[in-house]
Amino acid sequence: MTIETSDQFASAYVNSDRLWQRHMEMAKIGATPRGGVNRAALTTLDNEARALLTHWAHELGFSSSIDPMGNLFVRREGRDIQAAPVMSGSHLDTQPSGGRFDGIYGVLSALEALQAIDAAGITTRHPIEAAVWTNEEGVRFQPGCMGSLGFTHPERLTQLLEAKDNDGVTLSQAVNTLRKRIPQAADQRPHRPVAAFVETHIEQGPILEQSGHTIGVVSGIQGTRRFHVEITGEDAHAGTTPRSRRKDALSAAVAMVSALETIFHDDPEDITRFTVGAFNVEPNAESVVPGFVMFSIDFRQPNESVLSRLGDQVEALCQRNARGCEVRVTQTSRTPPIHFEGLVPEAILSVSQRLNVPHMRIFSGAGHDAQHLFNICPTGMIFVPCEGGISHNESENATPADLAAGARVLTDVLVQLAETTD
Amino acid sequence: MTIETSDQFASAYVNSDRLWQRHMEMAKIGATPRGGVNRAALTTLDNEARALLTHWAHELGFSSSIDPMGNLFVRREGRDIQAAPVMSGSHLDTQPSGGRFDGIYGVLSALEALQAIDAAGITTRHPIEAAVWTNEEGVRFQPGCMGSLGFTHPERLTQLLEAKDNDGVTLSQAVNTLRKRIPQAADQRPHRPVAAFVETHIEQGPILEQSGHTIGVVSGIQGTRRFHVEITGEDAHAGTTPRSRRKDALSAAVAMVSALETIFHDDPEDITRFTVGAFNVEPNAESVVPGFVMFSIDFRQPNESVLSRLGDQVEALCQRNARGCEVRVTQTSRTPPIHFEGLVPEAILSVSQRLNVPHMRIFSGAGHDAQHLFNICPTGMIFVPCEGGISHNESENATPADLAAGARVLTDVLVQLAETTD
Repeated sequence: MTIETSDQFASAYVNSDRLWQRHMEMAKIGATPRGGVNRAALTTLDNEARALLTHWAHELGFSSSIDPMGNLFVRREGRDIQAAPVMSGSHLDTQPSGGRFDGIYGVLSALEALQAIDAAGITTRHPIEAAVWTNEEGVRFQPGCMGSLGFTHPERLTQLLEAKDNDGVTLSQAVNTLRKRIPQAADQRPHRPVAAFVETHIEQGPILEQSGHTIGVVSGIQGTRRFHVEITGEDAHAGTTPRSRRKDALSAAVAMVSALETIFHDDPEDITRFTVGAFNVEPNAESVVPGFVMFSIDFRQPNESVLSRLGDQVEALCQRNARGCEVRVTQTSRTPPIHFEGLVPEAILSVSQRLNVPHMRIFSGAGHDAQHLFNICPTGMIFVPCEGGISHNESENATPADLAAGARVLTDVLVQLAETTD
Repeated sequence: MTIETSDQFASAYVNSDRLWQRHMEMAKIGATPRGGVNRAALTTLDNEARALLTHWAHELGFSSSIDPMGNLFVRREGRDIQAAPVMSGSHLDTQPSGGRFDGIYGVLSALEALQAIDAAGITTRHPIEAAVWTNEEGVRFQPGCMGSLGFTHPERLTQLLEAKDNDGVTLSQAVNTLRKRIPQAADQRPHRPVAAFVETHIEQGPILEQSGHTIGVVSGIQGTRRFHVEITGEDAHAGTTPRSRRKDALSAAVAMVSALETIFHDDPEDITRFTVGAFNVEPNAESVVPGFVMFSIDFRQPNESVLSRLGDQVEALCQRNARGCEVRVTQTSRTPPIHFEGLVPEAILSVSQRLNVPHMRIFSGAGHDAQHLFNICPTGMIFVPCEGGISHNESENATPADLAAGARVLTDVLVQLAETTD
């Protein structure tokens, strides 16, 4: 693949080596033994990663700001002092056994775009900002995509700021710690108009790699329903309690997961995503029949009617396999499928065509901050391939060439949006 | 029920109120909100419980000693300075959500027996010792019944002293902490001859209560096989990874437990005990397909041939349900069924008859320290009922009258053994 850049366009100034080296520098912060990253939101490590980004931004002459949710913005000014910013970005937090690219690429490619536009000597009407959204992964605080949710939904802000981690630390307290770590950043308002939003991301699936495409023009994000299933049985002695007298919460949980697995699949299409990711047992002792289990369900589908029909069966299926235990099923979140249309995906498509980079329309399996920005401005996403489709895994990988290709498309898309958008 | 005591016998001096009050005092140490006890071996709490026992013993004029495994002995001297002690006892450590009687009753009834024998003015040829065996529950260190195992198996002592808890603290270091907490106790040798051993315990099952018997003359302890099953799959993104490309360790674990449950039962006899008590998932995050699961199997049976036949199927059943993951099955312990015969159960039977207390022969579903003492001396056990058969549970309960009845039988059995045993 040769991308046909031209000095007329800022994409020519994207530096593949520089972009790759910044990824490698970021990956040192919270590096895991097996080559991944463990960097939960607003921890010392995440704050260090944000400080590094801010350091790079200030060296390049860009300004920075932090809003009450801890969202961090790097800004290149535009000609029109009244114009809302065109934004691009993603997140720097990771899963406990996460990789070096998920989220990070979206932030670093946005910074690369600002630097390339600067190098090209281009001025834009709108300012352009690179955004770091807080707690996208939902590991330390719930829900995930919290920073972009708070930014786009004023009515949720107060409640989100009171969210607590497992140690009882509120998001609000954690943001205070971040503010002290990056005193150079200005205070930013919690909500602002945005002219347009573009998020670049690794695909986190195998489709681009398998089909030989470098750019995915994302046409939408599948819907998600998440549940917590809490099963209360009775602690009992493993050696003396007959099976007939047990209220074994683990045995019930296993029956429930088995029953759910038989419903939640669609071979050979293999589109429905059903995952039990968290599973906690009490007292979790080898010689005690477990009296309590909590497990999570993460269910995703691009089709709203399938999302409704299957998700609505969760409670009944769990109750039917209770095995004498008490069962409580709670839906913790529901996000409908969304479809990116108009200005932004059209710009991504036309820039990809001009640069002659192999591209295709693709649907997102994962949720992203873009799904919240979608509510307030024209929005789209750019995917690049990742090795073997593997993500949320320490072995997550991508090539310098693919990352640079995505950054080149992003750069010209941002210039176009910042010049032409109202 | 009226027990027919006589001033001729020390059992007449057993004090039901005193015995109950000591249980209530002990239950304050590590008390849980729902009325149970959480007191892992050789923790600050367990050491406090042992210090309280030693305080009571010294007030009554008995001596105390601690051996290298941390086993604690309270001694009433006999006439024959050469004679090995007759011993009775159990443990003071509990499960994380344990009760007020499991183990504790065996220790406090032994102390009550020593006090009653003293009050009766009876001298015995053999000394009599009340024993507190270390880490019976196997919660902090593995294996369980560790103290009595080290006491009876000299070849295992060094290895057991090096066992580490989850924080890396060795048993040996934990015993040093205990020694400092109870400086009045003498140093005891790691191994000694024992003339006979009797352990009293709540039944931890429903049989005595249901059949209206106060005393269980224990005829044996069922055999146990324990396993760890480790499943290594691949962490993956819950939203993007198609089912066909997953190596989901939790899904495999669920399939394994389901398959095992279909084999490991024997309705309507309901004698086989099969329990998955510990179940640990990594990374245990809601939106990550789990790449690793470890679960435990606790399997018990009174019949050695069934224990062999079923237990030998664990590995193959797990491998057959691996679902693309790697599976490692480790048998962590195996204890054959044992049968108490001769001197001790005969004494328990004859004393129960003389005291006219309703009694029956019963098999133990749980493992006990008595199973190790069985290897070095004539051994037996006395069971009393517990409410609803519930144990390893904060709601574990027993009546003052039943506890006193068991202590009366124990007292006269100990006198008989301490006088007549060689």
